[in-house]
Amino acid sequence: MDIYSYITGFVDGEGCFSVSFSRRQKMNFGIEVRPSFSVSQHKRNYEVITFLGKHFDCGGIRFSRNDQNYKFEVRNLTKIISNIIPHFEKFQLLTSKKNDFLLFREICFLMKRNLHVSKDGLIKIIDLAYKMNESGKRKYTKDELLKYVVR
Amino acid sequence: MDIYSYITGFVDGEGCFSVSFSRRQKMNFGIEVRPSFSVSQHKRNYEVITFLGKHFDCGGIRFSRNDQNYKFEVRNLTKIISNIIPHFEKFQLLTSKKNDFLLFREICFLMKRNLHVSKDGLIKIIDLAYKMNESGKRKYTKDELLKYVVR
Repeated sequence: MDIYSYITGFVDGEGCFSVSFSRRQKMNFGIEVRPSFSVSQHKRNYEVITFLGKHFDCGGIRFSRNDQNYKFEVRNLTKIISNIIPHFEKFQLLTSKKNDFLLFREICFLMKRNLHVSKDGLIKIIDLAYKMNESGKRKYTKDELLKYVVR
Repeated sequence: MDIYSYITGFVDGEGCFSVSFSRRQKMNFGIEVRPSFSVSQHKRNYEVITFLGKHFDCGGIRFSRNDQNYKFEVRNLTKIISNIIPHFEKFQLLTSKKNDFLLFREICFLMKRNLHVSKDGLIKIIDLAYKMNESGKRKYTKDELLKYVVR
């Protein structure tokens, strides 16, 4: 078996590329941008979660009592760019998650260029992020966020 | 990418090996044994579902209005044995689903030998099936089913 292709298949089903926003006064415009790559599994599959952590050589693992899941998550932008993105460029997703990944990648590259601290960059990032994960729930609507940026 | 390994990864997350039982008077002991391999996806991922159907060259695709999902499912025992089982013997699952697959395979091979029409065979199959998919819901408890067989 080719483990790289297996991982792409597994992530295509179970993984999540997301970019969330939270209010933090000390950040520009009071908005923190948080990219995240994560995979959750019921505790019975803890081994696969630790395997992903070792394979990608970054991120952390947390247990959620609520749903008895372990979650492998990478939030560090540098690690996302060096360890996560290249994998999915080479071993490409086949579901609609590929579109999420492409938007996620674009946002991470904008952040690497530090564009999220500028008004135009942040607006662009918000715009891209709200095209991702159409079924997901968000704390703020896009308009609410944009109000903080343009006020 | 190796598409065989991708499929194992995808199925490890999203697939389901199951053996269900239903009451049918014309069957021995009034119990029908139904093995099933299936993968469900939201309609936005219809392409992956049709891809699996073509790849495994068997099964059918159904749409569920309730959850807006397409389900690829193989119920035909002969096709399960010829087209599905060999894939997962060669490209092995890494989660607890591997255990479900091994029980599923054992049941399919017992059925191929027509042992599900005998009392001992059916008891064995029920026993194996109730070790699968611990989080799944069943129409009958194991004891309810066994009562039909041994009465």
